[in-house]
Amino acid sequence: MFNLVRTTARATAARFFSNSPTMQAPTVAVVLSGSGVYDGSEIHEASAALVSLTRAGAEVVCYAPHAPQLHVIDHTKGAPMEGESRNVLVESARIARGNVKPLAELSSATADAVFFPGGFGAAKNLSDFAVKGADMSVASEVERVIKDFHGAKKPIGLCCIAPVIAAKVLGSSGVTLTLGKADDGSGKWPYAGSIDAAKSFGANAVEKGVNEVAVDEANRVVTTPAYMYEGKFHEIHDGVAKAINSLLSLIKS
Amino acid sequence: MFNLVRTTARATAARFFSNSPTMQAPTVAVVLSGSGVYDGSEIHEASAALVSLTRAGAEVVCYAPHAPQLHVIDHTKGAPMEGESRNVLVESARIARGNVKPLAELSSATADAVFFPGGFGAAKNLSDFAVKGADMSVASEVERVIKDFHGAKKPIGLCCIAPVIAAKVLGSSGVTLTLGKADDGSGKWPYAGSIDAAKSFGANAVEKGVNEVAVDEANRVVTTPAYMYEGKFHEIHDGVAKAINSLLSLIKS
Repeated sequence: MFNLVRTTARATAARFFSNSPTMQAPTVAVVLSGSGVYDGSEIHEASAALVSLTRAGAEVVCYAPHAPQLHVIDHTKGAPMEGESRNVLVESARIARGNVKPLAELSSATADAVFFPGGFGAAKNLSDFAVKGADMSVASEVERVIKDFHGAKKPIGLCCIAPVIAAKVLGSSGVTLTLGKADDGSGKWPYAGSIDAAKSFGANAVEKGVNEVAVDEANRVVTTPAYMYEGKFHEIHDGVAKAINSLLSLIKS
Repeated sequence: MFNLVRTTARATAARFFSNSPTMQAPTVAVVLSGSGVYDGSEIHEASAALVSLTRAGAEVVCYAPHAPQLHVIDHTKGAPMEGESRNVLVESARIARGNVKPLAELSSATADAVFFPGGFGAAKNLSDFAVKGADMSVASEVERVIKDFHGAKKPIGLCCIAPVIAAKVLGSSGVTLTLGKADDGSGKWPYAGSIDAAKSFGANAVEKGVNEVAVDEANRVVTTPAYMYEGKFHEIHDGVAKAINSLLSLIKS
């Protein structure tokens, strides 16, 4: 199994970045929003993105807002820890192993693509979707980054609930993206209400499974449901890996 | 690439657990020590273990000590955050997505194998190796768990710095394990001093690369260097995956 994966990974990296003598390894920015599904970046989505990026030979730079978290959630209870405050950048450094820059330093001049893992941090610290739903607004630094990369035609990837941010910022461009599937009664799609919000912003929200990716080639936006689906750890990992490889393909196209 | 991985994963699960009508999916306990490399479990090692376990069809139950962390480290600075205290179980729940039990509830009667990710949490919260080096002691609950699984001949897996715990508890049994390689001047093995400590406890510390696993079939202990090596995200992921598959193979043998 490992030989297969490693051999294929080398082939993938070669395919993406080595078929021209002038093609260098791309730099991909990963925008974190804390560390932990209920108040920050979903840890396994973030790890899957980082693993998939270095596997394909990309250089990775992590960023996060230097701002207080909306909440600090006790993840054993799903409830706020009263009186606690934490900083999004400082907590994101747990995922980034210390190597994280303030989001204010990110621009399309410094990276070839940008990826946003999900987790409630995307809906609490990068936007206020978790509180305001369809009346949401996007943090100004995050809106600036998305408009910047979109304007520069550099690819933007998002997973889980994070695509709702792209829906808000790029809805007027008719962006196509996925927030997973509508509630089918299985209990596997608990956050399907976000689809209606995305549509209300003008986005074309398409239904995709956890192992699928929505690619908007015109807007250069890649999305995958990840933990919008109540899946197993490897299902989320593999879906995010697929999104990263689609994102890297868009850099070339 | 993904079709290859998924097909192989299914084949792996089938090989491990389906060649006898009485063989059921094993339950594997993962012992966390917080959430973040400098004061808890190393996030990418923990995620790799969970991804690899569900990929192979195992049931996973996470555990952590219900105790205060030794330190709360600002991961942007590598320095303690004065006046902050956090609970190992509560922070571990960030990795476990809320599903984590007190370590006191873990015994060899409730799981077929146990795995310890690394990170400084293993050397600060599961033991005091980070402070006392070769004069270390192991937290009593952790020592109980390792002796219990060892006595029941149920496999124990550890990665990164966590094998030093097995060296301390099982050194008198001459356990064979790896803590990576001795400093070769490359700067890639910054924690190689732990090898001497393990040897001082009676362990047979063998040198392995980040993509290798040490398997002690007699003591049923599996180890891999993981972030003892300054590797890329996917190198650590693949090494831990290899350790998990070796651990699962030992359940059968």
